[in-house]
Amino acid sequence: MRPMETRVFKLFGISEELLEEKLKTIDEKINFNIENNNGDISLTISSQKIEEDMLRNELAEYSYGTGADTLESITGNLLKEYELKLSVAESCTGGRLSDRLTDVPGSSNYFLGGTICYNNESKNKLLSVSNKTLLRYGAVGETTALEMASGVRCLFDSDIGISVTGIAGPSGGTEDKPVGLVFIALSSKFSNLCNKYNFEGLRKDIKTKAVNNALNILRLFLLDNYKNPKNEIS
Amino acid sequence: MRPMETRVFKLFGISEELLEEKLKTIDEKINFNIENNNGDISLTISSQKIEEDMLRNELAEYSYGTGADTLESITGNLLKEYELKLSVAESCTGGRLSDRLTDVPGSSNYFLGGTICYNNESKNKLLSVSNKTLLRYGAVGETTALEMASGVRCLFDSDIGISVTGIAGPSGGTEDKPVGLVFIALSSKFSNLCNKYNFEGLRKDIKTKAVNNALNILRLFLLDNYKNPKNEIS
Repeated sequence: MRPMETRVFKLFGISEELLEEKLKTIDEKINFNIENNNGDISLTISSQKIEEDMLRNELAEYSYGTGADTLESITGNLLKEYELKLSVAESCTGGRLSDRLTDVPGSSNYFLGGTICYNNESKNKLLSVSNKTLLRYGAVGETTALEMASGVRCLFDSDIGISVTGIAGPSGGTEDKPVGLVFIALSSKFSNLCNKYNFEGLRKDIKTKAVNNALNILRLFLLDNYKNPKNEIS
Repeated sequence: MRPMETRVFKLFGISEELLEEKLKTIDEKINFNIENNNGDISLTISSQKIEEDMLRNELAEYSYGTGADTLESITGNLLKEYELKLSVAESCTGGRLSDRLTDVPGSSNYFLGGTICYNNESKNKLLSVSNKTLLRYGAVGETTALEMASGVRCLFDSDIGISVTGIAGPSGGTEDKPVGLVFIALSSKFSNLCNKYNFEGLRKDIKTKAVNNALNILRLFLLDNYKNPKNEIS
């Protein structure tokens, strides 16, 4: 018998159900284990022979790494490779995004810093979110998130600013803005973007889901805009 | 036989060795388990009859709660009770202190926000740490930590400002300032204080040790300065 092979694939943006389905399409008898940390998936495959090319191909759009890779280490590597500086404006994640980014040794090479603004006053004072925006849309909204991202980019003079604002719960939700509503925005010289989410779970899960998605947005943005420097303004 | 009793005591500031010694003084046959998360200890006692008064008395100076209490929930309760607002200036902990504080539901009642300043420019610009201080003492020093704490208190107009600056490693250490050197400072209307630590461990452990100690400094400061002596009468 050939020795057992074990491989760990790191995936994001795929449900466990879809992943299981895809794995069984590749090999009916595939032996796997899924660890799902709020959408951040570690897939361990143990088999006599792993159809690694087929697997990679099938999971390409969700795969961000292997083994000990993390969303923050992979994103950090990209920032380092492209010589970009990052700053972070957090509200509902309360510092967790910056904490994750700075878990990576050498992150001071690309992470300049961040703010946690838990009230409107500091969103206005530190991040220059306009009072008009805060009055019209409140602390949780697309325009607010976008102004936070561009505000923190300006505050730290970084290449990229990323922001998270939402309602982590358990209280503070309304019919219009329920617990789990989160906006994640990114500001750069190329473009500004903002995604809206409705996360489920407890306070800590919502924080982690928001952080995982923020890291993944940043990773995809870096790959899209810097991997093939077609957008580079010369 | 009487039913088994199980109690969880939460402790900080005691080594496992000293704790074991104390427990055996109370009862030679005591049945216990110690979980130590970078100094934050969960002590589970299972016995026919717990000498709870004796235990409480013996461990009083280290005990901060029971059961599901955490350093951040207990500290948060004190801030809420005394109607105080907090802000946080982080460097080497990279957001972890704010993240822990905001894991507590309702923390927006007392946590105004924070900054993560990973370079000297932002320590000066956001927290008004003087360039003279940064030139003389660098990013990691007592004076720098004190200026960060008073700076963030001023920035957020909070009652208390707390700061952490240090060297989380694995690189960045020198003979004078080795990896694990951390300063934690607190600024309030009563006083300013700063503690110096030399933590051991990996980057994530050093971050967590710094956060645990910052929370405990804040807890003890609140008890020392705000606890109404009448509350002690039971």
